[in-house]
Amino acid sequence: MQHTRPLTDVLTAIECDRPAQLTRLFDWLRIPSISMVPAAAPDCLRAAEWVAGELRGLGFDATLRPSNSHQMVVGHRKCQRLGAPHVLFYGHYDVQPVDPLELWTRPPFEPHFEQDAKNGKMIVARGSSDDKGQVMTFLDAVRGWIAATGDVPLNLTVLIEGDEEADSGPLDAFIRANAQELRADLVWVCDSEAWDRTRPAITVSLRGYGGAEITVTGPTHDLHSGKYGGAAVNPIRTLIKTLAALHDDDGRVTLPGFYDGIAEPTEATRERWQRLGFDPEAYLAEVGLRHPSGERGRSLLELIWTRPTVEINGIWGGYQGPGMKTVIPAEASAKVSFRLVPGQEPSEVLAAFERFVRERLPEDCGLRVVPADGSRGIAFDPEADYVRQAVAALTEEWGVAPAIVGSGGSIPVVSVFRDVLGIDTLMLGFSQDDDRAHAPDEKYNVDALVRGTRSWARMIGGMVAWRASG
Amino acid sequence: MQHTRPLTDVLTAIECDRPAQLTRLFDWLRIPSISMVPAAAPDCLRAAEWVAGELRGLGFDATLRPSNSHQMVVGHRKCQRLGAPHVLFYGHYDVQPVDPLELWTRPPFEPHFEQDAKNGKMIVARGSSDDKGQVMTFLDAVRGWIAATGDVPLNLTVLIEGDEEADSGPLDAFIRANAQELRADLVWVCDSEAWDRTRPAITVSLRGYGGAEITVTGPTHDLHSGKYGGAAVNPIRTLIKTLAALHDDDGRVTLPGFYDGIAEPTEATRERWQRLGFDPEAYLAEVGLRHPSGERGRSLLELIWTRPTVEINGIWGGYQGPGMKTVIPAEASAKVSFRLVPGQEPSEVLAAFERFVRERLPEDCGLRVVPADGSRGIAFDPEADYVRQAVAALTEEWGVAPAIVGSGGSIPVVSVFRDVLGIDTLMLGFSQDDDRAHAPDEKYNVDALVRGTRSWARMIGGMVAWRASG
Repeated sequence: MQHTRPLTDVLTAIECDRPAQLTRLFDWLRIPSISMVPAAAPDCLRAAEWVAGELRGLGFDATLRPSNSHQMVVGHRKCQRLGAPHVLFYGHYDVQPVDPLELWTRPPFEPHFEQDAKNGKMIVARGSSDDKGQVMTFLDAVRGWIAATGDVPLNLTVLIEGDEEADSGPLDAFIRANAQELRADLVWVCDSEAWDRTRPAITVSLRGYGGAEITVTGPTHDLHSGKYGGAAVNPIRTLIKTLAALHDDDGRVTLPGFYDGIAEPTEATRERWQRLGFDPEAYLAEVGLRHPSGERGRSLLELIWTRPTVEINGIWGGYQGPGMKTVIPAEASAKVSFRLVPGQEPSEVLAAFERFVRERLPEDCGLRVVPADGSRGIAFDPEADYVRQAVAALTEEWGVAPAIVGSGGSIPVVSVFRDVLGIDTLMLGFSQDDDRAHAPDEKYNVDALVRGTRSWARMIGGMVAWRASG
Repeated sequence: MQHTRPLTDVLTAIECDRPAQLTRLFDWLRIPSISMVPAAAPDCLRAAEWVAGELRGLGFDATLRPSNSHQMVVGHRKCQRLGAPHVLFYGHYDVQPVDPLELWTRPPFEPHFEQDAKNGKMIVARGSSDDKGQVMTFLDAVRGWIAATGDVPLNLTVLIEGDEEADSGPLDAFIRANAQELRADLVWVCDSEAWDRTRPAITVSLRGYGGAEITVTGPTHDLHSGKYGGAAVNPIRTLIKTLAALHDDDGRVTLPGFYDGIAEPTEATRERWQRLGFDPEAYLAEVGLRHPSGERGRSLLELIWTRPTVEINGIWGGYQGPGMKTVIPAEASAKVSFRLVPGQEPSEVLAAFERFVRERLPEDCGLRVVPADGSRGIAFDPEADYVRQAVAALTEEWGVAPAIVGSGGSIPVVSVFRDVLGIDTLMLGFSQDDDRAHAPDEKYNVDALVRGTRSWARMIGGMVAWRASG
């Protein structure tokens, strides 16, 4: 293998850089770039500038680019080798909101190390796993190649956005407006999970997403339940009665047409799942549960990877403070989201949901609906060449083949890359299922950072070979 | 009539005192005595001291008395007339919480005047109607009698508590522990509504109360719905499914035994209601509604005054901030309260509710229940002598007989007065149904304050006659 020698040097360079790598990551994690919180806009800008600076230090012509929302960071780096393949790497610098803040052991933007028997040393901070730590694995693999060889053997475009946790609309528009500039042979994304601590995962399918905040209104103002209890409609009651009707007793979603056009997993897929040795009981036990809550009679992997769901992500109305307050509130709200699979159209599901709610609305109630941007479910061919090449590179690093998995989550940009740029996306990730990505005490294992960086170094080397043979 | 002359002087004295009365009330309203908010304890103490000071100025030997919670204010005033009747006046200095604060036009503890065509001049502040303004009507009637005649022709005990909006337990215990001291011939309470702007109301029945905060727990921590949607139980879904099952399609409460032992209104009661000329459509229209929401096939007065209900006063769980957050929360909570009628035992209703929730709990969910103190429904004889005497006094002031009504609300202390002191309570009030008693922009009409004070002055005079003839 012609590039074994440079690869050894690259891995050594990465090893030497480790203390500096952690310092850099901590700097980035200290910036509270919560895209959903308007007051955090200056922090989002700082986080964008920070990563643009990193890219420039790695020889990219990186710039901040305006979008409908937060700044996009785009950087290009051309390699010296003629005919080298061109990869677009995508990640995000924004992070999830931090509430409930009181459940964090330490403040979410003061990154620090923790240690336990299961994970070893961990970096605890909002964004450590989703997605700043994962982005760093790629950037520092690039750094390793440059340190060891003076160049990276690929043409690279890096796109780091700041709205991933908030709204997929701005990125969608940005890619459409800059399609020519962003075109590449393949997309790499590092925003997904490893199979476990000893085995990374390549994700070949994603669920889509749809959602809305709905508010049921009733009386013109909050009422005293002594005076109006039995007389006035209670919007909380209307809201929960409707939301409770979204599932039948078998856990199936009752929206008309919800399951139309959805394919069952193929036999090959079921066999691949079988070989994963997945333990559904252990998966649930990690979060204190014992029973799958979805459609009755389906396996857990099937429920998470290939079946659509509706969840109530938040609900509120009336008095929520200490003690009791006998109020009939003027309104009540809920955030409802769907996980979708190929065959479902997000706009149609949302429309069916709104019809469902409106049909159940008593005459005395009103409804406000604030839809969120949707994305379709997606599935790539697990036998594609670029997947085989990645499997080979990762097997060298980990001593075991990576898991080929589905994901129950959504990365809307992946559909946009396919639809607008016409290219496939390979999703590779090193975060763990107990990283609490959207919850208090989010963490990223130091081991994931270390081996993730080494993995990307090998992926970069492997990509050269793929193109050479392609 | 022997006391016509002093009464004229009393009413004149009240008239002259009006500017000072408003200044005093505003002072009291500026104290944010929210009994449910632990941080407001010093303000509750200030509000208690304020009213004790007022009582001392009126010749009461008023003191602050410790209880299980906030201080009780007790004052006694003996009149010079031998054989005079002894009345216990009860009110409360604590007020409801103020959230949602953003719905207040001006800060809730900065009392100010507003004016509209319907109500004329209004005092807007938390506590203006419930109950500081109403308490002031009685205190300043006493002041008028003293100013005009040098004495009040009744023996008076005044009991002003600070837990009415939070917990009936402390007052209950205090009355039991001090029954000998508090004994009187009759209780007067000013914490209820007028029939309308031209007619006060005497309340002869109250609904009871029961309630609890319940929390359904699920996973050990908040989960990402992409990773666990379809796998993990969602406590919001469990909670709302259970609460939605509390009513059937006819609006009846489904708790087993809920309606057992409840009497239907008598024919005499129905006739009295008929004569009130109540307009259910106008009552609902005032709060923007058109249809009674309670049990199908019953009149609105019946629903509010004589039928028990269950309401969800508050609900919360998961993400409630801006944008969407795809979380499956670790828990979800609701505040649920019951309005009860004679024949229902609060503890039994709460026990049935807890059973109802537990029976519907999936194996993966837990339940926490924090019960609130309950009180029974109560009904007095509308033909009693002290009611007739009040009707006569009020008819003189208003030119029309007061309405004899039921109340859908609860004043737990009224049962305690009956059970512990063995005496009846006459509930007279001047607040209006649009006073927003437990809601933002609570107000009390200046006209209610003025005529309420005059009404109590006449009630005091009338009570002398009642005893003389009794």
